[in-house]
Amino acid sequence: MAHDFIAGIDIGGTKIAVAVAAASGEIFARYSVVTDAAIPPETVMGGLLEKLERMAEANEGRLVAIGIGCPGPLDRERGLVLAPPNMPRSWWQFPLRAYVEERTGLTVVVENDANAAALGEHLYGAGRGHKDLVYLTISTGIGGGIIADHRLVHRVGEAGHVTVRPEGARCGCGARGCLEAECSGTSIARRAQEYLLAGGASSLHSVHPVTARAVIEAVREGDELACAVWRETIELLAIGISSIIAVLAPESVILGGGVSAGAGELLFGPLRQELKERVRIVPLNSVEIVPAALGTESGLYGALALVSQRAGKD
Amino acid sequence: MAHDFIAGIDIGGTKIAVAVAAASGEIFARYSVVTDAAIPPETVMGGLLEKLERMAEANEGRLVAIGIGCPGPLDRERGLVLAPPNMPRSWWQFPLRAYVEERTGLTVVVENDANAAALGEHLYGAGRGHKDLVYLTISTGIGGGIIADHRLVHRVGEAGHVTVRPEGARCGCGARGCLEAECSGTSIARRAQEYLLAGGASSLHSVHPVTARAVIEAVREGDELACAVWRETIELLAIGISSIIAVLAPESVILGGGVSAGAGELLFGPLRQELKERVRIVPLNSVEIVPAALGTESGLYGALALVSQRAGKD
Repeated sequence: MAHDFIAGIDIGGTKIAVAVAAASGEIFARYSVVTDAAIPPETVMGGLLEKLERMAEANEGRLVAIGIGCPGPLDRERGLVLAPPNMPRSWWQFPLRAYVEERTGLTVVVENDANAAALGEHLYGAGRGHKDLVYLTISTGIGGGIIADHRLVHRVGEAGHVTVRPEGARCGCGARGCLEAECSGTSIARRAQEYLLAGGASSLHSVHPVTARAVIEAVREGDELACAVWRETIELLAIGISSIIAVLAPESVILGGGVSAGAGELLFGPLRQELKERVRIVPLNSVEIVPAALGTESGLYGALALVSQRAGKD
Repeated sequence: MAHDFIAGIDIGGTKIAVAVAAASGEIFARYSVVTDAAIPPETVMGGLLEKLERMAEANEGRLVAIGIGCPGPLDRERGLVLAPPNMPRSWWQFPLRAYVEERTGLTVVVENDANAAALGEHLYGAGRGHKDLVYLTISTGIGGGIIADHRLVHRVGEAGHVTVRPEGARCGCGARGCLEAECSGTSIARRAQEYLLAGGASSLHSVHPVTARAVIEAVREGDELACAVWRETIELLAIGISSIIAVLAPESVILGGGVSAGAGELLFGPLRQELKERVRIVPLNSVEIVPAALGTESGLYGALALVSQRAGKD
């Protein structure tokens, strides 16, 4: 008899990761592709769905449900991608759920990627046992997901768009000085480039292109310009996170995504310090600031979690 | 036979209002006193409880439950006032619920004042029928209450403490540039005084003390300095409210408190305009920005709502 497998698809601006897992969430096989603006979403998804079916077969099983995390904003009810600033234009208005349902005939659940990742960390990661938590992913963009009273808040809220610098950079969303516009991987790289153009000495002058990863490496090597960019990053992150804590007073703030994973204690140490200054009204010792336990796979586990719970209940 | 009445007590930094009502929330009698730092909370509350009993008797009834809204932070579980920056020090650590329970022998429910007001507007005011809303009271301080999925979120979150000006004024909470530190009635007056000290011509030079109310009156008369202070107020409010909308994506943002009520369209018109610039990721046409329908009595109705629901269920 074939095993019943679930599939998770974590769509991102940089890559799209997929996995086949048991209903418990235990992953049997993984695969990923780079997000390519030149390839239409139908082609990308079509290829990935075939791959998932083959992965299930190779493990002597068949797929029964598919969970998908996708950058917001999206129309969750209709499973429709709206106009996510961090996805290629070809994805805008793509009827994601309808397409996958028609192709597979399976149960398909689509959720904002950061919401899915919050659920992943809540069920399998750093958020286990916490009633109220906020998950922030710091990668190409910054997304946020909220768990309240052990349940995912299915709203279109986007915590990455709290204002951290009122007259700051124009954000992909159209507003100014959003957390995402100042502290996402892309934005850290942009601020570093501004510092470099202003003419400071730095090892980063010989790096092309300058990425958040390159900035973090230069910080580790003690590069002064990179350290200044990083201090500013921590300060801006602390402003944004303190606003989120003020509104929600969660038990835990979990930071995931490539930038958080890459920086590690270089991020968490100074951030906790800076938050002591910025968070006063809510007792900060009641809020833990921790790395995502699933690393860069919070979103993938979250995509699985969208249907694993459902699969478990059926 | 005596009627069963409920009582509501709305404690604030400026005044304390009480009411006696039917279980439905219909108010039969009101009373209020000015908050006086020199009078200990036991004396104030003792006097008000006697007054409430007499008001109930005068309407041929007796009290069965008391709902109390009080400025946060407070320990809701224990009904204990903690250290609210907008209340006299004499109230800090006051065991509010225990005191009222012992004095009356009745059911007593204590809640953060802005939470209570959010509930009041949700049940009786501008928020009727809305599933998800945020209530902000702009008065001595700025408090916020959240209704999610028709239920009051009983958290210690304080939406008035989102950061709107990272290097701004020191807030009562200890942090910098909180919404409350820039846009509360007290803070509007402080900013106006700073403008006056900087030497601009203004009718406000002859007003002592300069209050938010005086600033609003001067704006109506076209005073240029007051208009500059007001434009800044709107901008800072829009920054804070846009961050709250980003996190929560509510259906409705209800603004109450003395400043909102006093300013009316002088506030709402330009604020809606400014929010169009600042709120992009969440479709702003899905979020209404409206005045509290209960005016300055949202909190009083909210205090009643804390026990009216309960009374209704018993």
